[in-house]
Amino acid sequence: MSASSFPFNILKTGHVELRVTDLERARDFYVDLLGFVETERDDDRLYLRCIEDWEHHSLILRRASTPGLGHIAYRVESDEDLETLYALVQDQQLTARWLELDEERGQGRAFRFRDPIGFPIEFYHRIERVERQLQRFHLHRGAHIMRVDHVNLHVPDVTFAESWYANVLGFRRSEYTETEDDPPRVWATWLHRKQNVHDVALMTGPGPRLHHVGFWTQETGNVLRAADILAASGFETHIERGPGRHGISNAMFLYLLDPDGNRIELYTNDYLIPDPDFEPIRWQLNDPKRQTYWGAPAPQSWFDHAALVETFSGDAFVELTPPEIADRPAFVGH
Amino acid sequence: MSASSFPFNILKTGHVELRVTDLERARDFYVDLLGFVETERDDDRLYLRCIEDWEHHSLILRRASTPGLGHIAYRVESDEDLETLYALVQDQQLTARWLELDEERGQGRAFRFRDPIGFPIEFYHRIERVERQLQRFHLHRGAHIMRVDHVNLHVPDVTFAESWYANVLGFRRSEYTETEDDPPRVWATWLHRKQNVHDVALMTGPGPRLHHVGFWTQETGNVLRAADILAASGFETHIERGPGRHGISNAMFLYLLDPDGNRIELYTNDYLIPDPDFEPIRWQLNDPKRQTYWGAPAPQSWFDHAALVETFSGDAFVELTPPEIADRPAFVGH
Amino acid sequence: MSASSFPFNILKTGHVELRVTDLERARDFYVDLLGFVETERDDDRLYLRCIEDWEHHSLILRRASTPGLGHIAYRVESDEDLETLYALVQDQQLTARWLELDEERGQGRAFRFRDPIGFPIEFYHRIERVERQLQRFHLHRGAHIMRVDHVNLHVPDVTFAESWYANVLGFRRSEYTETEDDPPRVWATWLHRKQNVHDVALMTGPGPRLHHVGFWTQETGNVLRAADILAASGFETHIERGPGRHGISNAMFLYLLDPDGNRIELYTNDYLIPDPDFEPIRWQLNDPKRQTYWGAPAPQSWFDHAALVETFSGDAFVELTPPEIADRPAFVGH
Amino acid sequence: MSASSFPFNILKTGHVELRVTDLERARDFYVDLLGFVETERDDDRLYLRCIEDWEHHSLILRRASTPGLGHIAYRVESDEDLETLYALVQDQQLTARWLELDEERGQGRAFRFRDPIGFPIEFYHRIERVERQLQRFHLHRGAHIMRVDHVNLHVPDVTFAESWYANVLGFRRSEYTETEDDPPRVWATWLHRKQNVHDVALMTGPGPRLHHVGFWTQETGNVLRAADILAASGFETHIERGPGRHGISNAMFLYLLDPDGNRIELYTNDYLIPDPDFEPIRWQLNDPKRQTYWGAPAPQSWFDHAALVETFSGDAFVELTPPEIADRPAFVGH
Repeated sequence: MSASSFPFNILKTGHVELRVTDLERARDFYVDLLGFVETERDDDRLYLRCIEDWEHHSLILRRASTPGLGHIAYRVESDEDLETLYALVQDQQLTARWLELDEERGQGRAFRFRDPIGFPIEFYHRIERVERQLQRFHLHRGAHIMRVDHVNLHVPDVTFAESWYANVLGFRRSEYTETEDDPPRVWATWLHRKQNVHDVALMTGPGPRLHHVGFWTQETGNVLRAADILAASGFETHIERGPGRHGISNAMFLYLLDPDGNRIELYTNDYLIPDPDFEPIRWQLNDPKRQTYWGAPAPQSWFDHAALVETFSGDAFVELTPPEIADRPAFVGH
Repeated sequence: MSASSFPFNILKTGHVELRVTDLERARDFYVDLLGFVETERDDDRLYLRCIEDWEHHSLILRRASTPGLGHIAYRVESDEDLETLYALVQDQQLTARWLELDEERGQGRAFRFRDPIGFPIEFYHRIERVERQLQRFHLHRGAHIMRVDHVNLHVPDVTFAESWYANVLGFRRSEYTETEDDPPRVWATWLHRKQNVHDVALMTGPGPRLHHVGFWTQETGNVLRAADILAASGFETHIERGPGRHGISNAMFLYLLDPDGNRIELYTNDYLIPDPDFEPIRWQLNDPKRQTYWGAPAPQSWFDHAALVETFSGDAFVELTPPEIADRPAFVGH
Repeated sequence: MSASSFPFNILKTGHVELRVTDLERARDFYVDLLGFVETERDDDRLYLRCIEDWEHHSLILRRASTPGLGHIAYRVESDEDLETLYALVQDQQLTARWLELDEERGQGRAFRFRDPIGFPIEFYHRIERVERQLQRFHLHRGAHIMRVDHVNLHVPDVTFAESWYANVLGFRRSEYTETEDDPPRVWATWLHRKQNVHDVALMTGPGPRLHHVGFWTQETGNVLRAADILAASGFETHIERGPGRHGISNAMFLYLLDPDGNRIELYTNDYLIPDPDFEPIRWQLNDPKRQTYWGAPAPQSWFDHAALVETFSGDAFVELTPPEIADRPAFVGH
Repeated sequence: MSASSFPFNILKTGHVELRVTDLERARDFYVDLLGFVETERDDDRLYLRCIEDWEHHSLILRRASTPGLGHIAYRVESDEDLETLYALVQDQQLTARWLELDEERGQGRAFRFRDPIGFPIEFYHRIERVERQLQRFHLHRGAHIMRVDHVNLHVPDVTFAESWYANVLGFRRSEYTETEDDPPRVWATWLHRKQNVHDVALMTGPGPRLHHVGFWTQETGNVLRAADILAASGFETHIERGPGRHGISNAMFLYLLDPDGNRIELYTNDYLIPDPDFEPIRWQLNDPKRQTYWGAPAPQSWFDHAALVETFSGDAFVELTPPEIADRPAFVGH
């Protein structure tokens, strides 16, 4: 039979937890300006979701002394998958723990572990269903963000990291970037579980770091509107790059820095991949249309800056390993 | 393990074959006005594809003495799936045959069968890969149609038809319409394999008939542009309904009749369903926002008219069975 | 010299006063749903403006026992123009009066008169300048309405009414509709002072009545969004016609009925007319693309229903005169 | 009376003549990629127009040994205006000549002169009316450019140049930029005759030079599409700046260099100015939101590069005078 050979089914990037130093300031940015929907809050956390979401949250903002990544969560198809994956990470001797009851609001049984690259990853299946806002059009605000789409990660060794995501977890490659070396080396890769370009992208860089979290909108007009709203609110210095169209993924993009410097991407116009045998698209690192199809280089800050990731205990950041190959193309803006 | 309990994997609606009485006239409509890409032609067939397609074709126009549906093709994940499904239809004593070599250009081994409702269905896996036009922006024309999205079928007994699609083939329900009877009866249902609202919709009506083939565009502007182009070309009477937004599926739509009266839908702004446990959305038949969220009723012709489907031998049409329940809401335009 | 031969300069449709029976309910509709900006209010009036406006108001909602039109105001270039026009209406023995100080908030010296067709018209020059919201993007709401564009009036005798607007006030024709009679008769006409298609349209119908007030948006997406917002708020029955594209004016339109049944149009994508010698575009009454370029007929209600206009004293409505020619095309929806 | 005190009426920027070294290559760029409509050609000139135009041409591409500006033409209201303006330039002892019959195809009586800043200016009134393409939607291509909107000029002394345009020709200021000097000096100014932000902008720089010609589109999507088409055709290096939103004028913009390096702007979302007493908007030179509302600086090339202008005889370029004040803000990209 043709079904996947993996004894579990990871569905999608489910949510991301970002550390922010001022919860109210972060709320102003994400809810008041960008239009995220607040589901619930406690003293230290805001649980936000997007317009298309029926899950309790797709973005958690957690109060912390410094910015950074709390954790990345992938949803799995069943309770059984959760147990299978827990056994797998134990077999691999990765540090892991089941969450306390109600440690994360709205979520059922779930565990976190440190993946071999150093990222704090969570798997969950059960989560509280909340009202979807898709047709509550009168409540849509800001950039009309539909859903979390992907995470983009800086890793020192893309080949190693991709091998783990693809061979152990079953992610599939949609697009990739190679160096001009002979033989070429994989510089970055876009991997998906749900049927669009990616749930996770792995790029060469000092890591483990979170480069950005990507959120999907329905139309390009929403991406432009985000820039207008931010500039009108005095946040024009938080617009780091774009709007533009990616060569990779075909998406219209806008990169924003939140008040703590965590980077998010607004993203639309990528494509659907219903076929597991979709032939991955190859790009060369120095193709000027790779990053921005219209030719403009990404700025230096876009290559230099990324969010540190919490250690498993949450009280420090994982130390960085420098990449083994150059971490940027020859063609960079300033 | 959590993977599907079906021993095969149907990926998506792959292509549809429509009968047209004048191939050149049909080509003008689909290629010159709407912007479909011509991959190949022979004396009796035009093989067309959309901008996002890498497959040889997603729409076949076949010369015939009368309009109607030739066949509907679903793509499966593997050669093995094809054999498994062929055995299944034989077990069910459905009429079936393997296609001749090159009977359908660009396609590998494939079989057709008459499903229990009477539709001519094809399963295939192998198909020639052709150049995707997604980033050949200078070649995009017309409505910038990205891909085939779904078929919508008139069937006399939706419950029976859905049972076959869901229980035998593994399609999942995303939305459905019930009558106001007590207990309510299922009047229509939207079923998907790929991760959006549908690959096939089943609506109560005299059947088997093809109500329409849906094609997906990236933005609402593309849908509006189709209307402008058609009207400017003297085809305004071929705009049957819309533009409008569906309550069901949330999509922006425009219904068009081709020069032979075959109906297609341009369709965008629906949503992604990466979760198999997505809770289907229920609509009542007489909710005025169900069909057009903005309240305008669909015209009578939209309920009356649909394309007949070929018999398996291709030389006649399948006889119609009237529906067991009323085939339209109380609320209809004219 | 080539300058206009009129000894005054009417600049544009400046604002319109509508009668509403429930000021709070009207405010919910115009401000909360459609996104008009509230400048000021008193016990009986809401003074609203649009995003692009620097004037104190472009729409007044006035509490009254019945819906209808309060008055239509045109802005003139100078104080001197005001005096010249006042002398003109006195010469023509039209009923007229100067407004009391602060009778209309924010506005300077102004007079109202009953025009020869029976409409209550106001001319003003001075008006309080308020903050323009054009680049306060974070405050834009609803349909992002930029400015008042035009009024559309039902008049029993278009030829007579046009003659007055054109020959006495200096409005210029951009487009017009003729009957199929031999010789043809003018059925409707679009007249402008500012440089787009119209400030006032005159259509054959029982009159004097206000058919609608048109408001301009920047993009078609804003028009569609209005429909989404209204339907989501339970106002789908207030969407009377559209969205569609007009043949006349080329505009994308959406006709809405406010909670009192006063009709407004959201309108975009018309064109600029910087040339006084623009050659007016002729349409035939029964051309199906005239009203909706895409072919759909306007509904009966769109022909039947219009707002009565106040008598000059404000305590009654002007009696209607039936039109001398048929008040609708052969081609009407239902 | 309030009408303008100028004894002539300049209506708008009517057309611009650009010098190109390869007419076929220029045609590919303007017609095949951007979608300009070709009206007529002769051995040395292509006469192009835009979708909304009813005039014979709004852009002339003239074969020449080097790129540059041929002339800028403003349309006037009447033949009489033409005579009045000719007398005016003679009074001012500016070099001027009437055009030969048919020297410029489709155009009636017209004269050219060298303005006091050194630009070759043409005034015309009569021009052949051709079919407007506004509703020939099936023929719209490329960026769907509606009309020529403005020219932007580098001049050494903005105050002097503005004085001539405003006081002699009757242009009105809509927006302007001042230095931070005390007292501030006018660094740039936007002047209009037709009722939008500008027909001509004057910016401090070595001059006389043509910085760019601006063309107007209906929606932001058209501007983005131009970038997609150019990049897909291998012209990504011809996208110099944008897409972005201007602070000044509020317009969405994209700056392109044609194959000869002549710069054009695609431009939309500015605003209407029906009121002669519109209060000009003041910007400070170093406000980062002035040029790009979203904060990104314009690149150096955008400040350095501009097109030389022909001498009156057409066989050489006018010598440049350096500006008296700094020709760029502190805030420039690279």
